[in-house]
Amino acid sequence: MEARSIFRNISPIDHRYSISEQELFDALTPWISEEAAVASCIKAEVALMVAHLSMRGQLTPELRETLEKAGASVDPAEVYAEEEKTRHNIRALVNVLKTKVPADTAPLVHLGATSVDILDTALSYRMKGVTYEVVLPLLRKLELLLCDFAEKEAETPQVGRTHGQHAVPVTVGFALAEYVSRLGKSILEIERLASGLKGKLAGAVGAYNATTMIVRDPEELERIYLAGLGLEPSEHSTQLVEPEYLLRLLLEFNVAFGIIANLADDLRNLQRTEIGELREGFGADQVGSSTMPQKRNPWNSEHVKSLWKAFMPRTMTFFMDQISEHQRDLSNSASQRFTADYVAGFCLAVSRMKGVVEGLGVDRERLLYNLRGGTGTEASGRGSGIAGGVMAEPAYILLAETGVSDAHEVIRRITLAAEKDGISFAEALAKEPEVLERIGGKMAELGLTASSGEALAFFREPERYSGLAAKKAKALAAKYRNLMAGSCARPSAE
Amino acid sequence: MEARSIFRNISPIDHRYSISEQELFDALTPWISEEAAVASCIKAEVALMVAHLSMRGQLTPELRETLEKAGASVDPAEVYAEEEKTRHNIRALVNVLKTKVPADTAPLVHLGATSVDILDTALSYRMKGVTYEVVLPLLRKLELLLCDFAEKEAETPQVGRTHGQHAVPVTVGFALAEYVSRLGKSILEIERLASGLKGKLAGAVGAYNATTMIVRDPEELERIYLAGLGLEPSEHSTQLVEPEYLLRLLLEFNVAFGIIANLADDLRNLQRTEIGELREGFGADQVGSSTMPQKRNPWNSEHVKSLWKAFMPRTMTFFMDQISEHQRDLSNSASQRFTADYVAGFCLAVSRMKGVVEGLGVDRERLLYNLRGGTGTEASGRGSGIAGGVMAEPAYILLAETGVSDAHEVIRRITLAAEKDGISFAEALAKEPEVLERIGGKMAELGLTASSGEALAFFREPERYSGLAAKKAKALAAKYRNLMAGSCARPSAE
Amino acid sequence: MEARSIFRNISPIDHRYSISEQELFDALTPWISEEAAVASCIKAEVALMVAHLSMRGQLTPELRETLEKAGASVDPAEVYAEEEKTRHNIRALVNVLKTKVPADTAPLVHLGATSVDILDTALSYRMKGVTYEVVLPLLRKLELLLCDFAEKEAETPQVGRTHGQHAVPVTVGFALAEYVSRLGKSILEIERLASGLKGKLAGAVGAYNATTMIVRDPEELERIYLAGLGLEPSEHSTQLVEPEYLLRLLLEFNVAFGIIANLADDLRNLQRTEIGELREGFGADQVGSSTMPQKRNPWNSEHVKSLWKAFMPRTMTFFMDQISEHQRDLSNSASQRFTADYVAGFCLAVSRMKGVVEGLGVDRERLLYNLRGGTGTEASGRGSGIAGGVMAEPAYILLAETGVSDAHEVIRRITLAAEKDGISFAEALAKEPEVLERIGGKMAELGLTASSGEALAFFREPERYSGLAAKKAKALAAKYRNLMAGSCARPSAE
Amino acid sequence: MEARSIFRNISPIDHRYSISEQELFDALTPWISEEAAVASCIKAEVALMVAHLSMRGQLTPELRETLEKAGASVDPAEVYAEEEKTRHNIRALVNVLKTKVPADTAPLVHLGATSVDILDTALSYRMKGVTYEVVLPLLRKLELLLCDFAEKEAETPQVGRTHGQHAVPVTVGFALAEYVSRLGKSILEIERLASGLKGKLAGAVGAYNATTMIVRDPEELERIYLAGLGLEPSEHSTQLVEPEYLLRLLLEFNVAFGIIANLADDLRNLQRTEIGELREGFGADQVGSSTMPQKRNPWNSEHVKSLWKAFMPRTMTFFMDQISEHQRDLSNSASQRFTADYVAGFCLAVSRMKGVVEGLGVDRERLLYNLRGGTGTEASGRGSGIAGGVMAEPAYILLAETGVSDAHEVIRRITLAAEKDGISFAEALAKEPEVLERIGGKMAELGLTASSGEALAFFREPERYSGLAAKKAKALAAKYRNLMAGSCARPSAE
Repeated sequence: MEARSIFRNISPIDHRYSISEQELFDALTPWISEEAAVASCIKAEVALMVAHLSMRGQLTPELRETLEKAGASVDPAEVYAEEEKTRHNIRALVNVLKTKVPADTAPLVHLGATSVDILDTALSYRMKGVTYEVVLPLLRKLELLLCDFAEKEAETPQVGRTHGQHAVPVTVGFALAEYVSRLGKSILEIERLASGLKGKLAGAVGAYNATTMIVRDPEELERIYLAGLGLEPSEHSTQLVEPEYLLRLLLEFNVAFGIIANLADDLRNLQRTEIGELREGFGADQVGSSTMPQKRNPWNSEHVKSLWKAFMPRTMTFFMDQISEHQRDLSNSASQRFTADYVAGFCLAVSRMKGVVEGLGVDRERLLYNLRGGTGTEASGRGSGIAGGVMAEPAYILLAETGVSDAHEVIRRITLAAEKDGISFAEALAKEPEVLERIGGKMAELGLTASSGEALAFFREPERYSGLAAKKAKALAAKYRNLMAGSCARPSAE
Repeated sequence: MEARSIFRNISPIDHRYSISEQELFDALTPWISEEAAVASCIKAEVALMVAHLSMRGQLTPELRETLEKAGASVDPAEVYAEEEKTRHNIRALVNVLKTKVPADTAPLVHLGATSVDILDTALSYRMKGVTYEVVLPLLRKLELLLCDFAEKEAETPQVGRTHGQHAVPVTVGFALAEYVSRLGKSILEIERLASGLKGKLAGAVGAYNATTMIVRDPEELERIYLAGLGLEPSEHSTQLVEPEYLLRLLLEFNVAFGIIANLADDLRNLQRTEIGELREGFGADQVGSSTMPQKRNPWNSEHVKSLWKAFMPRTMTFFMDQISEHQRDLSNSASQRFTADYVAGFCLAVSRMKGVVEGLGVDRERLLYNLRGGTGTEASGRGSGIAGGVMAEPAYILLAETGVSDAHEVIRRITLAAEKDGISFAEALAKEPEVLERIGGKMAELGLTASSGEALAFFREPERYSGLAAKKAKALAAKYRNLMAGSCARPSAE
Repeated sequence: MEARSIFRNISPIDHRYSISEQELFDALTPWISEEAAVASCIKAEVALMVAHLSMRGQLTPELRETLEKAGASVDPAEVYAEEEKTRHNIRALVNVLKTKVPADTAPLVHLGATSVDILDTALSYRMKGVTYEVVLPLLRKLELLLCDFAEKEAETPQVGRTHGQHAVPVTVGFALAEYVSRLGKSILEIERLASGLKGKLAGAVGAYNATTMIVRDPEELERIYLAGLGLEPSEHSTQLVEPEYLLRLLLEFNVAFGIIANLADDLRNLQRTEIGELREGFGADQVGSSTMPQKRNPWNSEHVKSLWKAFMPRTMTFFMDQISEHQRDLSNSASQRFTADYVAGFCLAVSRMKGVVEGLGVDRERLLYNLRGGTGTEASGRGSGIAGGVMAEPAYILLAETGVSDAHEVIRRITLAAEKDGISFAEALAKEPEVLERIGGKMAELGLTASSGEALAFFREPERYSGLAAKKAKALAAKYRNLMAGSCARPSAE
Repeated sequence: MEARSIFRNISPIDHRYSISEQELFDALTPWISEEAAVASCIKAEVALMVAHLSMRGQLTPELRETLEKAGASVDPAEVYAEEEKTRHNIRALVNVLKTKVPADTAPLVHLGATSVDILDTALSYRMKGVTYEVVLPLLRKLELLLCDFAEKEAETPQVGRTHGQHAVPVTVGFALAEYVSRLGKSILEIERLASGLKGKLAGAVGAYNATTMIVRDPEELERIYLAGLGLEPSEHSTQLVEPEYLLRLLLEFNVAFGIIANLADDLRNLQRTEIGELREGFGADQVGSSTMPQKRNPWNSEHVKSLWKAFMPRTMTFFMDQISEHQRDLSNSASQRFTADYVAGFCLAVSRMKGVVEGLGVDRERLLYNLRGGTGTEASGRGSGIAGGVMAEPAYILLAETGVSDAHEVIRRITLAAEKDGISFAEALAKEPEVLERIGGKMAELGLTASSGEALAFFREPERYSGLAAKKAKALAAKYRNLMAGSCARPSAE
């Protein structure tokens, strides 16, 4: 009776993206759906009963199992029906649970707890769960794909670009290794922060007022309760767990989101018609445009960037939810529910990017053409740049090394001459034998060439000027492949 | 087959709030669900066919009806199934529609259009619709309730507060009239902006390239197409309608949202235990706290504020979506889909606030007690303020009017004396007969009292010092009640 | 003594950008510096004295002049020195002013006003002033430059791009006309909103409590006071003017900011090495990179985008400052001071963009090369696209018009064949005589060509397929040039 | 010549707040003014020269000193003058420095570096410096004040509040210990993150292209260069240092900012006229309101909250600056300069809050009155609550413990009876001897009272029901006082 057509949902997460990424959606719902929210509160209530029984020395394995089964039998629809009457969600849940457990244990339901002892604990439980079971595995897969790509293309030459202008050479693998390094560290940080999420059983204002009426050591009761859910207590509580444990995790999600969005932007641009160095996989039947049959759009990368636009600003909500008056106001309640949307949106982006990297094609010919010639520096002189202009830097450096103090200016004039004459930088350099000789001598001295006469060949093959690009790409790929393989099992509950 | 338990949804909009505000949810889905998105695109495609037929002189009422019925018969599930193949949502929709219309009209489907000619137009159609059919009626109801309240309580004395400190008197109606005035203007602005939403049929890059191949006057075709949906053309288009038409409407939604959030904060604070001047309606069976039986929380006002925290930051996304490279990139696609969530979140807040104002209780005794005595100025001397301290201002003003240039300082010293002696401001004033006489004389001169001897009575009844509060409250209530009654019918399509 | 080295300032607005845009900085300081803040409060205090005198029939031109001179003689340093003692900025200012005016008028200083009657009024006065005197003139200059550019390049062919991919042709002027249209409307909106800024003289809680003690018609006093500063009263006041008057103006600034940022992004991308269609002016001595002598970076466009990143999020502060508890809390005080930074940041971006458009160079050869060949579709077959692929759309449209229902698919296959064979789309089309004939016939029928045989020539010259691009560019340039010329004088004070 | 009146500055940081917090401003300028920006770049350039000389075995202590003196002699005005010509800030700085160093070392200036090798490194150096030298000492002082306060007031009874409603008792020290705990962890995190800031010498695209031309081990050169500034290399560089090192530090600043803003909100509310439990220090001559002589506003707490509103949204800029195309675009340049404003704004808030806590007054009488009676529960029955209503929770808990399953409902009815009869909760409880007896028995059983007859006394003294409040307050104060005393010296450069 509580079923509804998916298409009648309002949030894209619950209609369009629940279909296009169904596997992901199905992995998320056990953690961040409303069903999961209710189930995790029940789980917490049962853990609380177990803790009470344990403190009293009355816990048996059978009783624990009975209670867990009772909890598992609660249907969210029942709770919602009861809430119609109480207009208080946890009181409703408590009322329902009391009807499910053995009558003699019913007084233990919610005993000593305030609603938030359950709600905040259950939230930490779910956020830790979804991070370990969905977010981290997804991120690790993406990271490993990036490692593979960086390693495979570690030596593939590519022009480095700054300000959208050709700068000096790198390699494709080096460019991707940027993301290996940045995302890798973020993954490790996410794991660290998820493991530190906390719960509480400190009562209505955090001072253990109620539980002091019930047990001799209320902090011990809290520890047992939380251990049953794989959590530890918040160092101080008001009615709420300290908000920063979760806040920092969400911020780090957004740090990772920004890294992935940056990658998406790079991929979008490298797929421009005029650049064409990389390309997203494209189905044989896929339509690029409803009217322009020739189009192949980098729509998956665009999608990732767009999700970032939709979700990044929501970190403002996380920051606003840090503030709660006195021992708490409720103004973080509705807003915090939308954390689920954020997690879903982030996972959608990671998942989509995973698909992009899996299918990423590399056009080696075009890469070399762009680097050498390259696009934008056509022989026809139409280009605003000059062919081989990326080699102006080593020329300047080497010339300066020979003691020429205005080396930068000397080389800049050669680039202007090349542009004026419509020739490549190497050819323009060849027209300045004195300069070339100084440079060649220096190169030989440094062991970069066998003799000074080989200098011109170096300037004609910009791919030779790629520094440590390949080495860095390989080293980072290896390092993070290892780190990703490290233990990533979820610290289990007792 | 596409049905799913509501509780398996992820966004609170689609589970919890779709239940708690079911009537609102049902009003929204015809406009902002995925079903609505598909249906409105179909509607646009049919409008395009009708426009072509009209330009060709081939349109008959029967044919129009046939096409509209064909459009209405499309099921979103069919379109999604087709999209599995095309991986392009509009091409999928076009393919499906072609199978529904008479074969000889099939070539007219989507003719001359690029996807966004349909999508952006349909979005404007839906946003205009939801604004006129759901948002504005809801806002007008809230505004009228505020008008009623402001008028009813126009003369009810209340202490005015600045910095959380007692300042000088106002009336309850005056305090509420603030929201009558601010929200009223925002409603008028929303109506103006919704009526100005635009569509387009300018093709892939906005230059009418395609339609120039089809008709002599492509702008005329565009006008007819859009008129069929009650819209006019964007002044300039790229692939997209100019983003600012919709942006300004969404920003104004958020302006209204902020006004409502401010009201929520005021109501929350006026319900503090120590203030207690207003109170939300509270069901007889309702539970305030799962552990504190005495609690009555202003949870609806808290809820409204919390929704504002969740949705206000999303305006950043709207601003980011202004930017699209060249004739468009797709990085506004996913993000723009979440506009639906924003509209839902805003409506949820308006609807909840409507309920709050409907049930708002006023404690006149407490209001007068706070104003006169008041809370925080107990006779016991415990208070940090002084009883009747709100009358320090008129004393200073009147004294200054008699030519005393350090009047502010004279009165400040009297307030300090009152505080020291634990007496009210009026009694402390009585101890300064010279000051009182000057003030009384001035009052008589201004016609505020019949004789100078009555001055002390005035200072003992702060409610007499409320300026134009009542008058302003009544005038604003009357003005906006009239404005709300003005024509608010949706400008209909041709 | 209050002077300090510019380089010791912290905000870039006050050091780096105050130097690089000194003319702008000098135009802004009379409105949004601290000097201006103090001066405008003094101006408001004097206007209040004048209003009192006017109500009393005691105002003479000489007295007005005396008071204005007294006001003008106040030095902000004096006020700050006094504030050391009072720790209240307006009380300090009042104390200082009292020493400057004729002794018999001193009791009129600040009479009946609360601090915010001065502060909020002075803020509106300054924001209206800076908008009319600095922001609008700057924006209008930019708009007129865009109009000129759009008109001059109205017929210059350019490839239209969607998703970073070649789509169908436009013209350079048409692409710029987008910004003529979007920015033009924003300018008109800014003017409208600035003219509607309001002031107040409604006292500590907005109910005219104090002024009711002083004059018979406090609203008349308020009107006279505000008219002296060219303002009208807020419809309702608390201690504050309704925040939305200013909020909407600031939001519209940000709408314009987003439009300019979009233009900046377009210009950045069109200056990529591989595209090279436009270029920023570049000084002969200018250094592009400290190490890469060949570089010419689109740094001004990058700068504009970067300013947008720095300032756009500050609209969140504007939205948060809508909320003030009861008749006001002070939590909008410090935050609102930073509105000055926002205005400066916005103006810096407009000014920089003005410079960019002034010096914008167009490479017509490269534009045609990209459109026809174009870059990314080199004959060598290295390109991912196909030469002339932008003509796939008209081929599909025209073919469909002849009654071929799978025209989209037919043409898509031809584009794939062209790619496979490394030939242009026109040549691939020539290999399909039946298709070409149908298309040619349709073109002749539509009057696009004189005979069907000319069809192939059309497909070889994509610039012929630019729809209404040139016409729209010219029409928008003409329209907004006219609108900008319209009266834009600042509505003067009485 | 570059001096300017402070009052002509635009940003409040550089005028108003540079005066009101002059000591702080003077502490900040050596790190985050423009002077500091130039000086730190010079410092980096000198470190680079030293590294080159060291690699070549040519470094002597005298030469190092000579170079450092040369660097120290550079005036920012010279650099700005040179930039007029080069229009490139680092090239300008390099040109100036070359004129200062011994001629034979001039070729080493900037050798192998790209601008950002200097700029990003200098930024990390300054951000690390300002964090260790200004931010952390300020935060530690605040934290220690909070520790003192929490400890001193550890046993001072206060009513706990949730939803603005009286809930159950806490102590003042416990309430403040919340901030000890939250801020303390943030301080430790800030220290950790500041110590991890990185620099780079990896060249124009991060691949060490240039330095490979100069030295055999470019990574060794980078290490030596950075060690001279107390930094380590970014794990991977493009033209930029990986943005996340700094991003995480700035986000943690904002986490701490949110904690302080929360404290400010609590303090604001506890100073409401109706509550009056705490109060900010208030100068004897200080004016609260320009028209209301009785006012004492919590303006410092309001100021802190307002600064948070102004600066919190700027974290969006930090997130946007994560994204830079390819090996970098320049669109993070201007925006990143405003990081200085953010740091200043944050420090202003910390410093102001430090002052607030230093002068914070506690009204113990009022606290007890509110808790017991309390405000809002006046004997006159005007209150919306009931006196001693905070004791409903222990009554419910204890009753439930005796096996009464509807204990919550039983007690809720007693609170309603108390309200109806205008008596306190304790007196209403006394009217239900059976309930009282069960509760008393349970209390005696738990050792909370010596005999069941003492139960009523307990309910009449709510301060006895404060759980572990005092214990937690003391423990947290002790813990963080110790942690703050721990080594916090800045890791020095070699």
